[in-house]
Amino acid sequence: MPTKSKKAKNIRIAAIGGLGEIGKNMYCVEYDDKIVVIDCGIKFPEDDLLGIDYVISDYQYVIKNRDKIQGLVITHGHEDHIGGIPFLLRQLSGINIYAGPLALALIRSKLEENGLTRDCNLIEIDEDSDLDFGEISVTFFRTTHSIPDTLGVAVHTPVGVVVQTGDYKFDLTPVDGQPAPNLQRMAKLGDEGVLLLMSDSTNAEVPTFTKSERFVGKSIRNIMESIKGRIIFASFASNISRIKQASDVAIENGRKIAVFGRSMEAAIKNGVELGYLDYPKGTLVDPKDVNNIPPEEMMILCTGSQGEPMAALSRIANGTHKQISIVPGDTVIFSSSPIPGNTMSVNHVINGLEEAGAEVIHGKVNNVHTSGHGGQEEQKLMLRLIKPKFFMPIHGEYRMLKIHTELAQLCDVPKENCFIMENGDVLELNQEEAKVVDHFPASDVFVDGNGIGDIGNAVIHERQLLSEDGLVAACATVKMKTGQILSGPDILSRGFIYMRESGELINQAQKQVYHAIKMCFRSSGRVTESMINDAIVDTLQDYLYEKTERKPIIIPMIISV
Amino acid sequence: MPTKSKKAKNIRIAAIGGLGEIGKNMYCVEYDDKIVVIDCGIKFPEDDLLGIDYVISDYQYVIKNRDKIQGLVITHGHEDHIGGIPFLLRQLSGINIYAGPLALALIRSKLEENGLTRDCNLIEIDEDSDLDFGEISVTFFRTTHSIPDTLGVAVHTPVGVVVQTGDYKFDLTPVDGQPAPNLQRMAKLGDEGVLLLMSDSTNAEVPTFTKSERFVGKSIRNIMESIKGRIIFASFASNISRIKQASDVAIENGRKIAVFGRSMEAAIKNGVELGYLDYPKGTLVDPKDVNNIPPEEMMILCTGSQGEPMAALSRIANGTHKQISIVPGDTVIFSSSPIPGNTMSVNHVINGLEEAGAEVIHGKVNNVHTSGHGGQEEQKLMLRLIKPKFFMPIHGEYRMLKIHTELAQLCDVPKENCFIMENGDVLELNQEEAKVVDHFPASDVFVDGNGIGDIGNAVIHERQLLSEDGLVAACATVKMKTGQILSGPDILSRGFIYMRESGELINQAQKQVYHAIKMCFRSSGRVTESMINDAIVDTLQDYLYEKTERKPIIIPMIISV
Repeated sequence: MPTKSKKAKNIRIAAIGGLGEIGKNMYCVEYDDKIVVIDCGIKFPEDDLLGIDYVISDYQYVIKNRDKIQGLVITHGHEDHIGGIPFLLRQLSGINIYAGPLALALIRSKLEENGLTRDCNLIEIDEDSDLDFGEISVTFFRTTHSIPDTLGVAVHTPVGVVVQTGDYKFDLTPVDGQPAPNLQRMAKLGDEGVLLLMSDSTNAEVPTFTKSERFVGKSIRNIMESIKGRIIFASFASNISRIKQASDVAIENGRKIAVFGRSMEAAIKNGVELGYLDYPKGTLVDPKDVNNIPPEEMMILCTGSQGEPMAALSRIANGTHKQISIVPGDTVIFSSSPIPGNTMSVNHVINGLEEAGAEVIHGKVNNVHTSGHGGQEEQKLMLRLIKPKFFMPIHGEYRMLKIHTELAQLCDVPKENCFIMENGDVLELNQEEAKVVDHFPASDVFVDGNGIGDIGNAVIHERQLLSEDGLVAACATVKMKTGQILSGPDILSRGFIYMRESGELINQAQKQVYHAIKMCFRSSGRVTESMINDAIVDTLQDYLYEKTERKPIIIPMIISV
Repeated sequence: MPTKSKKAKNIRIAAIGGLGEIGKNMYCVEYDDKIVVIDCGIKFPEDDLLGIDYVISDYQYVIKNRDKIQGLVITHGHEDHIGGIPFLLRQLSGINIYAGPLALALIRSKLEENGLTRDCNLIEIDEDSDLDFGEISVTFFRTTHSIPDTLGVAVHTPVGVVVQTGDYKFDLTPVDGQPAPNLQRMAKLGDEGVLLLMSDSTNAEVPTFTKSERFVGKSIRNIMESIKGRIIFASFASNISRIKQASDVAIENGRKIAVFGRSMEAAIKNGVELGYLDYPKGTLVDPKDVNNIPPEEMMILCTGSQGEPMAALSRIANGTHKQISIVPGDTVIFSSSPIPGNTMSVNHVINGLEEAGAEVIHGKVNNVHTSGHGGQEEQKLMLRLIKPKFFMPIHGEYRMLKIHTELAQLCDVPKENCFIMENGDVLELNQEEAKVVDHFPASDVFVDGNGIGDIGNAVIHERQLLSEDGLVAACATVKMKTGQILSGPDILSRGFIYMRESGELINQAQKQVYHAIKMCFRSSGRVTESMINDAIVDTLQDYLYEKTERKPIIIPMIISV
């Protein structure tokens, strides 16, 4: 009896976000009529995205394929992996979201804040879960990172297995109570054959093996035990292991702990509920009691280790915090490294703290921080464990992806089997071959306050110009029929020049505008408002550039009557 | 039908050598009436073992149990793992020796030199071999180290599996053509359950992940390509990867290669025969032609990177080498780190080379060396892959073994399941428990020239005294019946004092000896030679100490007539 031959289909892989950048991770694994989406993160804006709160992905590929989506699988609870969920749900409700306990708790808080809890089903998973979506299924393996409960994902299809690592390092001695990476399960996947590995590239430029969180704990202990006065401990709120280690030492040394910063409060609440953190009765004190407790018995846990201007630590540094002022004898520990774009802000906060009299301990030199991402040795270890046929570096800027493919080649993945892709590229693959076959729109979407996507690159460009040379507005009331100027022109400027000290420049500018309006009516029969606007912009831009070599944004405001 | 219950037997583990030291590795895994011996190495003597060529183990435990021995399994071809074989075979011939291709070739050379080829069966294995000894069997897994063809060993018994790692690092990007460690096989052993892990402790004090041999290759390339003159490249002869990397760069840069040093010649011969090395025709030149080739086209490969006084490099440094004298423009690369006891000798050679006008590049700062042993991260990785119930650190001095057990505890092996043992201790274990139950003699045996074991600690102590204060001999011919001194006493000294400049001291010493002999005959009826000897020693010792505060060895030489 001949078996019914069915042509094997290809797997399609696409990044909605996460390639060529650190942030907004979101990947699709597609087989036949089924798509598994992995993660849905935001990106924090870089310094040149003025006024933008978050950057999210363009979700149109997912929305267009909404019928294929089997679920959104979350690797861990960091913002660059879950932060986009509320924005996604506003465009695509009713999906199943699968996540480990901590990530699930963080997603739930987020959805409650946004009134979106009814727009999806939250389903708790662990590394032993096996999601059965018919022809494809999803299994997991435990990894380690700078937040508990991190999972790598394996999507099993009839054509082969796709492994996506999530964010990882190989922390072989994680902090008490947290399990080590499941090497056996990774090796078994490798043994059975993996078609494609998609692996975290963040530290592809770092040629070492990242230090264990436990190693940092030792340094934190040594440093904290030698401090006599008050301790202010700043770290990422999500780094629960770090918070645990600092808290344990503080409690052992007879200190009380006060928590400042909304995200730190939330993290500790979640951490305690899920059993990652444990504060014996009386060790957590109300922030308003901070100043009634002797400094040597006090540790303050707070956010702001990245120099965020509104976070607790920045306000402490610039003296605008309600409860805490720095007094000599205070020691501030930055248990973090500045993300590259934040170096200046962090330095600013450090300067402020030191000027106010605090001792500041920060950076890798003091061993009070270690990365959550594996260095080259760990990326190679992942490659050797998984032994993929094809390789696609994810989670990184271009140069990181590039180095990561070089590592893959050293680990016996042929060069032609390595794919450095861009967001929106579609990689199609089967047992024999893989190639990029398609591209869909996947540009950044800016979130400014409550507006999603109503800010485009043009707006950002204007904000950049404003931030550089300010603006000059010219107002006039013009009778359109006759060309008579009923009032004005008046010149206003912001961020361009001090008007009081530049009376002559302003006078001359007024005259230029006056003549520009008059010229419009002289040279043309039918004058429109926009013609006048253009004339004002051209005239003023040339004039002001000639006089000041600056290019403020010119805003003509014609009231036509 | 009741099954016949048979009481499960215990596994017995013993180190003949390798614990509390770096060297003479030799371990026994015993079950019922069967013993598998793993490795049989020598130890290089430390500086205080004057005149000793090698140190080997006391083989009496193995000899006593000769009927149980199923075979000697070799992990790799370094001297501290195979060097003892000729000495063992002289006491225990006819055994089967199992080793990978390179180790087997090195053993064969060794046996041919000693005329011992008929005293054993050499059997080639690879990582897929499965040695079946009835109730027990032995399988292997590929590891990486500073010599090709390294294997870890798993001994399977009815009570459980014992894994012995051999020497290893996790070189995930080994030099071209050599395979990476078989992580899958290690993980599988761990998954199926390992009772005891015996793991290499050499770098337990190093908190990192050891750099890949390939990384060193890059540095060597950069350095060699920038050198204009002659290159003298010194490394361990056994480090074939290193030799390959240096040779490849030399050949690419149009250099010829000359080889100096007997072990380097042998290594290259073996390496070429087994396919690890490849020298295109005309690239290897006869050592006697070295001075006819322009310096910029010449690389000399030689031994002596440890400052060994008789090796090629030492003779080059002190100007006693027949073919090679240092000329300005020469660059010497030490692609090695001094073994702790050799630091002084190495510095001595470096000084000599620099005084003669050579540029010397050495040490880790130049990245021209990396260890063959894994650091803490790799030791933890092995522990996490193998997941043993019991742990026994091997291959290390006490402090290394101790740190290694601490690492094991961080990797979830309970403290009471970790055993720091000594050579000769016997660990007995089963699924439930393990304890040290026995001890057999396993002290060092010194090999001096061709003598084995005829040198004991007393001899070494004498050599130490000689090396510190020299010797003084007193000769006299004495007529025993009468006590008449027919000639002498004469005083001779070596390494004690310049006799010409100490005439008075020597004269007085002669008189002291004269009186001592006379006193023997005055005070006693029956005078023996040994009484005279004792009297001379006592007298001279006291006298010389009083005058010089030194304690030379006193050698009385009485010719009795």
